[in-house]
Amino acid sequence: MLGRTYDSQVCSISRMLEVFGERWTLLIMRNALFADSVRFTDFQQSLGIATNILATRLAHLVEQEVMTTDGAQYRLTARGRDLVVSLIALTEWGDRWAAPNGQPVRYTHDAGSHTVHARAVCEECGVLDDLDGVEALPGPGMPDHLAQRLTARHHQRHPAPPRLEEEQ
Amino acid sequence: MLGRTYDSQVCSISRMLEVFGERWTLLIMRNALFADSVRFTDFQQSLGIATNILATRLAHLVEQEVMTTDGAQYRLTARGRDLVVSLIALTEWGDRWAAPNGQPVRYTHDAGSHTVHARAVCEECGVLDDLDGVEALPGPGMPDHLAQRLTARHHQRHPAPPRLEEEQ
Repeated sequence: MLGRTYDSQVCSISRMLEVFGERWTLLIMRNALFADSVRFTDFQQSLGIATNILATRLAHLVEQEVMTTDGAQYRLTARGRDLVVSLIALTEWGDRWAAPNGQPVRYTHDAGSHTVHARAVCEECGVLDDLDGVEALPGPGMPDHLAQRLTARHHQRHPAPPRLEEEQ
Repeated sequence: MLGRTYDSQVCSISRMLEVFGERWTLLIMRNALFADSVRFTDFQQSLGIATNILATRLAHLVEQEVMTTDGAQYRLTARGRDLVVSLIALTEWGDRWAAPNGQPVRYTHDAGSHTVHARAVCEECGVLDDLDGVEALPGPGMPDHLAQRLTARHHQRHPAPPRLEEEQ
């Protein structure tokens, strides 16, 4: 259980992981998004998962409004379909660091002709190649006392330039 | 355990989840990447995680070469730092669907002045707004018999246009 710290109240990764925080759930989402899995047996056969575990996970996803079901089919909601960029990003980490035989899948759009990647994109600078300077600053949903901590760390990392005696 | 299907041999999300497949591990990575957590106590205090669980998770991350340690400090390797885009994408899902008080953090680069997002980017078209057409096609690391399945599904989804008797 999370909850002893600020996490379950504030952090969006924590809240995301309360919905998807173990591997089967993300693999079920992968199959729903990219392998056209719809029926219980689609997921079961493709994942080789025990039926009781699969039933629990699907019920959880329905309860979390990530899927809807009529009892026979499981369909993603908008909330569920919105996981596309996360799954591409997770796949590409695996492609780079855990795919000794090469990239197993290629994400495409435009009926398969164009290749798609998950990237960090700056509102001003466009797609970023160098991610070393990426940091987290407080957003509007961060309580003040926690925001102060993040901001203090930011100033430590980027000290204000020394003041000149006189401006040139 | 995964392994009864093709997943642990082929799929990059599966392999990724073998490294990071439960919530504490991703929260530890979040703290290492974005909260400057380095020492055991940094992680422990920030996450409020039981020390035995934290010790197991950190040892796993060191074993997986995502972190290195000298016994006192835990530092991310390149393999670990490369999780930035995934964590931004996961955060942004939480921001959109599970942050009733607004976005808790804002990712920035350039000393905090520019806002960064995780986006799907097409090699030809640039940043994609509409992700409905994104699909997975076989890459070079996909065994032939599995590639055939993905390709068949692709053709089902995008049937070839009917041939005309005579070209105009």
